[in-house]
Amino acid sequence: MARPELVALAVRVQQICLERSLTVAAAESCTGGLVADAITDISGSSAYFQGSIVAYANEAKMALLDVPGEVLASHGAVSAQVARAMAEGARSRLGSKLAVGVTGIAGPGGGSDEKPVGLTYIAVADESGVDVRRFVWQGEREANKTASAEAALELLLERIAD
Amino acid sequence: MARPELVALAVRVQQICLERSLTVAAAESCTGGLVADAITDISGSSAYFQGSIVAYANEAKMALLDVPGEVLASHGAVSAQVARAMAEGARSRLGSKLAVGVTGIAGPGGGSDEKPVGLTYIAVADESGVDVRRFVWQGEREANKTASAEAALELLLERIAD
Repeated sequence: MARPELVALAVRVQQICLERSLTVAAAESCTGGLVADAITDISGSSAYFQGSIVAYANEAKMALLDVPGEVLASHGAVSAQVARAMAEGARSRLGSKLAVGVTGIAGPGGGSDEKPVGLTYIAVADESGVDVRRFVWQGEREANKTASAEAALELLLERIAD
Repeated sequence: MARPELVALAVRVQQICLERSLTVAAAESCTGGLVADAITDISGSSAYFQGSIVAYANEAKMALLDVPGEVLASHGAVSAQVARAMAEGARSRLGSKLAVGVTGIAGPGGGSDEKPVGLTYIAVADESGVDVRRFVWQGEREANKTASAEAALELLLERIAD
């Protein structure tokens, strides 16, 4: 089972989505399926959760989420622009009302001065538009994955709890 | 972090895939991203893991994995035929050498006399064809998810360790 804090957030997301007839999809890179895992730990999640595209490779981001190759080339896979395109792509491909997109550097490899390990962008898209937030986690790989999944569920909650 | 038994299997999968230049993709229904989560807990997994399509809704299985609507209608989402089509769809869509497909009833809802809670089909596809296995887990939702993810990684290992 996913960690208790993730499951608690997923329970709240599910409750609000079911009350308000909202559907949700995800596009995950650095979280590697952890957002979907937490959501699907809750019985009844199939009533609102459409699915998640875990797009680790750039080719997968382009082919499955319609992230433009030129956006990946000019901004890099870990960027606000790619997080936004991932959320929009998941929403469109999975036909959901909302979608969350997560891209980041879980570590320990892959970091640079400009883009350190822990750098993560999370976007939430719905019919009114897309919000993107930037985070820099300070933990190790699994802690960074968990922090990103937690932030993704929190941003989703923030949007639907309005 | 995913459970130690899952992570241990993912470490072995990664080791063999890197040694043999194999790439892997997944298509997950009842495991809800847990296979991808375990795989991506291991640093360096991006060198062989292309991604996972967590297709919870039937629409997602059709749109993202090319599972034919008539196969879903005639055999049901939890069937050997759908597991096979999911694995083939993930392999084709993600361009990987191997792919694993998992479909099952995690519970507690969704079971019937013919298809009880815990019923799970797992398929592994590579260039030589597709194998499908049938399981009936006896646990609760999360235990069934974990058992399915474990079996998926074991079947993948079996195929690549030949």
